[in-house]
Amino acid sequence: MAKRTFALGIDYGTESARALLVDVSSGEEVATAVYEYSHGVITERLPGTRTRLPAHDWALQDPMDYLRALDETVPKCLRLAKVKGDQVIGIGTDFTACTMLPVKADGTPLCTLKEFRANPNAWVKLWKHHAAQPEADRVNQTAQRLGEPWLRRYGGKISSEWFFPKALQILHEAPEIYHAADRLIEAADWIIWQLTGRETRNLCTAGYKAIWSKRDGFPRREFFAALHPDFADVLDKKMSRDIRPLGARAGGLTERMAKRLGLAPGTAVAVGNVDAHVAVPACTVTSAGKMVMIMGTSVCHLLCGTEEKEVPGQCGVVEDGILPGLFGFEAGQCAVGDIFAWFTRTAVPPEYHAEARKRKETVHDLLARKAAAYRPGETGLLALDWWNGNRSVLVDADLTGLTLGMHLGTKPEEMYRALIEATAFGTYKIIRTFEESGVAVEEIYCCGGLPEKNDLLMQIFSDVTGRRFRIARSRLACALGSAMHGAVAAGKAAGGFDSIREAAARMAGVRKKTYKPDPKAHAVYDKIFAEYDTLHDYFGRGGNDVMKRLKTLKGVR
Amino acid sequence: MAKRTFALGIDYGTESARALLVDVSSGEEVATAVYEYSHGVITERLPGTRTRLPAHDWALQDPMDYLRALDETVPKCLRLAKVKGDQVIGIGTDFTACTMLPVKADGTPLCTLKEFRANPNAWVKLWKHHAAQPEADRVNQTAQRLGEPWLRRYGGKISSEWFFPKALQILHEAPEIYHAADRLIEAADWIIWQLTGRETRNLCTAGYKAIWSKRDGFPRREFFAALHPDFADVLDKKMSRDIRPLGARAGGLTERMAKRLGLAPGTAVAVGNVDAHVAVPACTVTSAGKMVMIMGTSVCHLLCGTEEKEVPGQCGVVEDGILPGLFGFEAGQCAVGDIFAWFTRTAVPPEYHAEARKRKETVHDLLARKAAAYRPGETGLLALDWWNGNRSVLVDADLTGLTLGMHLGTKPEEMYRALIEATAFGTYKIIRTFEESGVAVEEIYCCGGLPEKNDLLMQIFSDVTGRRFRIARSRLACALGSAMHGAVAAGKAAGGFDSIREAAARMAGVRKKTYKPDPKAHAVYDKIFAEYDTLHDYFGRGGNDVMKRLKTLKGVR
Repeated sequence: MAKRTFALGIDYGTESARALLVDVSSGEEVATAVYEYSHGVITERLPGTRTRLPAHDWALQDPMDYLRALDETVPKCLRLAKVKGDQVIGIGTDFTACTMLPVKADGTPLCTLKEFRANPNAWVKLWKHHAAQPEADRVNQTAQRLGEPWLRRYGGKISSEWFFPKALQILHEAPEIYHAADRLIEAADWIIWQLTGRETRNLCTAGYKAIWSKRDGFPRREFFAALHPDFADVLDKKMSRDIRPLGARAGGLTERMAKRLGLAPGTAVAVGNVDAHVAVPACTVTSAGKMVMIMGTSVCHLLCGTEEKEVPGQCGVVEDGILPGLFGFEAGQCAVGDIFAWFTRTAVPPEYHAEARKRKETVHDLLARKAAAYRPGETGLLALDWWNGNRSVLVDADLTGLTLGMHLGTKPEEMYRALIEATAFGTYKIIRTFEESGVAVEEIYCCGGLPEKNDLLMQIFSDVTGRRFRIARSRLACALGSAMHGAVAAGKAAGGFDSIREAAARMAGVRKKTYKPDPKAHAVYDKIFAEYDTLHDYFGRGGNDVMKRLKTLKGVR
Repeated sequence: MAKRTFALGIDYGTESARALLVDVSSGEEVATAVYEYSHGVITERLPGTRTRLPAHDWALQDPMDYLRALDETVPKCLRLAKVKGDQVIGIGTDFTACTMLPVKADGTPLCTLKEFRANPNAWVKLWKHHAAQPEADRVNQTAQRLGEPWLRRYGGKISSEWFFPKALQILHEAPEIYHAADRLIEAADWIIWQLTGRETRNLCTAGYKAIWSKRDGFPRREFFAALHPDFADVLDKKMSRDIRPLGARAGGLTERMAKRLGLAPGTAVAVGNVDAHVAVPACTVTSAGKMVMIMGTSVCHLLCGTEEKEVPGQCGVVEDGILPGLFGFEAGQCAVGDIFAWFTRTAVPPEYHAEARKRKETVHDLLARKAAAYRPGETGLLALDWWNGNRSVLVDADLTGLTLGMHLGTKPEEMYRALIEATAFGTYKIIRTFEESGVAVEEIYCCGGLPEKNDLLMQIFSDVTGRRFRIARSRLACALGSAMHGAVAAGKAAGGFDSIREAAARMAGVRKKTYKPDPKAHAVYDKIFAEYDTLHDYFGRGGNDVMKRLKTLKGVR
């Protein structure tokens, strides 16, 4: 019998990192381990210093947490599965993005150096660091003024979460950090550098977060110069124009790192990748027209098409950005599971909590069970799912939540159902916007925490969108997707695969249970969606900017 | 020393009746007693029968409960205060309206007769019986078609709660009851008949609920004939055209009733009155321009003016309907305290309830305390107070509640505050509509359960409306107002008063504490009210009838 071979996937999330060891021949997940970052998300005070962060929209991380995650999880997986280091043929990783940091020429993060430790701009800016909004505004205004052609690929707007606003914030607020940095780099690429000893840049973050495209490369020097004179050479002085495709071998594991983790030196390491994007092939999706939804606190929608299309309010379109040979589209809802969590935390009365305890179920289960007794439309309620703004289609962080239809007999489970329906309408709006723009959405595949937790939610999403929903077999689709990319980096000769499609055919799968739309329910929901759509445009496209005006009034004394 | 003299007020509410014994010379409230109706509000099954009510919008009562209330409360008040029956010089009553019943020529309610007992249409139709909506629609359509001039006095719409829709429902559904009835009568007048042995009709219910006016009388015969041939003579066959002014002496207490209650035969009894209207002089208000708000589960707004004006969406204008010599206007909000009760019951999490228990306060107190820490506008929330439809200004029962501005950090106390603000905006809209129609609202007087319970609410109402709020001294303003009318019915010669103004000067009062608007808060609220107003018109005046369409979809299978 041939020796079993494995691939290792490491999924760097917001609060923790997870390693997953997967049998390359079957996709069997043989061991997993999690590390909660010791400094988590830094929002108040820099670790080991007295420095308070300047404002509430800051969100930083400690890059050393990413290395500690490797130390804690990789050896543990090997131990748990009784797998020897040399049985692991490839390593893949995925990261939140844009999560970026300034480093020295040898990869040393500036925040680890004593002289910069107390400077917030020396630390990792996490994806949800929103303090670079003035810089994002400047990027957008400048791009519009100069008529930059790439703006349309990003739905007409660059987010404050992305690479250049964050880089520009460092230059604006801490020029000494900017000038001391030899490199500004995505954490997704930095971790690969640590594993292989070589700096590489991956196509996914470059395309979705740093305005790069296979055909046009990065924006021109004049654009960067217009943002700030010292920013003119940001590409050549702080970054790299050498962008590698997904699944490419970034290099082999260094001797030092191999020893530290109990793996073989030279083990293939794939170039960096992004958590949502890497999940697509882990859901078995390797072709156009199949939308993958990563459903958790928020929802990411990933979809491939055969042509570049301009889709209003999408997060971006990147050639080869998800799967080679296809145009990858990304859209998203800022809050989904987060809305249900807000509701159960703040708006459910004591007797519901008591009943859930008595029945040994979660409050979510209880609400879903009660809400399932209602027919579509029976609650008379309608909500707009904007508790954390709208990422797609409107791209407007200043929008807020709305519910209507309440009467004196309205029950918590009805409100809960209305919120689920609202998030489903949000997804449906995204689907329809893709289709109206010429990008087909034929089937839907899901992964993440929500689908297996909430049967009602899945059925409502299916009924609202009128589409069958399939669910990834793996509960850890991101880590599995990373392991698959690791197996591709290893290549067929080393026991892996020559393409992500081959890896998906062997290592990925979906569950037997699918959710099929009930045509009657869909017909009712189509009527309610028309109401959602009217309110969406009224409150979201300037019919009535009351949500923004109320936000402005919050600060009035 | 002269013998102290007293007046007795009896306030017939929805769930109970309350008697109050008041010193005529000082207004001192010397004793009170409550009787909860033994059959309460009948919504499911007729008492002592197997008859189920036909639908959910039925609400009936047992007239015997009104007599039992007298038996239980009047002797108790005398006993508690150690007052002799002959010290009581006058009796006044007030009732919910329109609350009506079919009776025989001697006043016997049809529902007390064996042959009619199982027929729902033989029972008292309570004010909130809403099953006569088809009849109300017919009344409105017919009045419009025939161009009836009185329609404009009622904001252009007759409610299903009022007298003729209810009477017509009896004729439509139970012609045998209609024909067996010698009289159709307001419970407010029926109870006076029981006390005095004489049928009288009071101006207040006739004016506000039965389309009567001092100048034009009732609608013409042709109108009633157009509703139904058998309805043509409803006035002369089932009612009375002899309408008595408020405070008039209906008669003296019968021997039999005097004995039963422990009072003196011949004691003056005032003609019937309505619970909200009778409270106006009990708040010391006896002139134009001073709005009285009876604030509880719902809010009634009563206001007198010197001219008849057409005010959009008011409940009605009746000359002498509240105070003699003035035009009485009525408006209302269908749900106020009810909305806060809904919120605390269904949308407040366990830890808030636990904290309230620990601090020995109500959940309302806790929410109000926490909500008071916010500045106007600080929550970023806005609501429409239509949890039970809109009575004024839109007169539309099919409107529903709305909240917007929620985000993932929104707290229960913020929602609570937004709901209070919404009800204050609803009152402000009513005030502005009066003023835009030429009826001045200079000062505001309050009574009812809410004002003394919720300091924050009163301050917000004052800040939103920009007006000083005074509160009636009495916690039982309706019963006090009835007692005052009893003292007027007795007249000066018998130790009472010759006018309600004299009675108010002696027996009524307001508290020292008033609520004055903070100009800064009012300025912010004016901006938020502009937003409320825009949404009010958008959702309430046909800009977007989503609330109604959602209501229609509730029934779709």
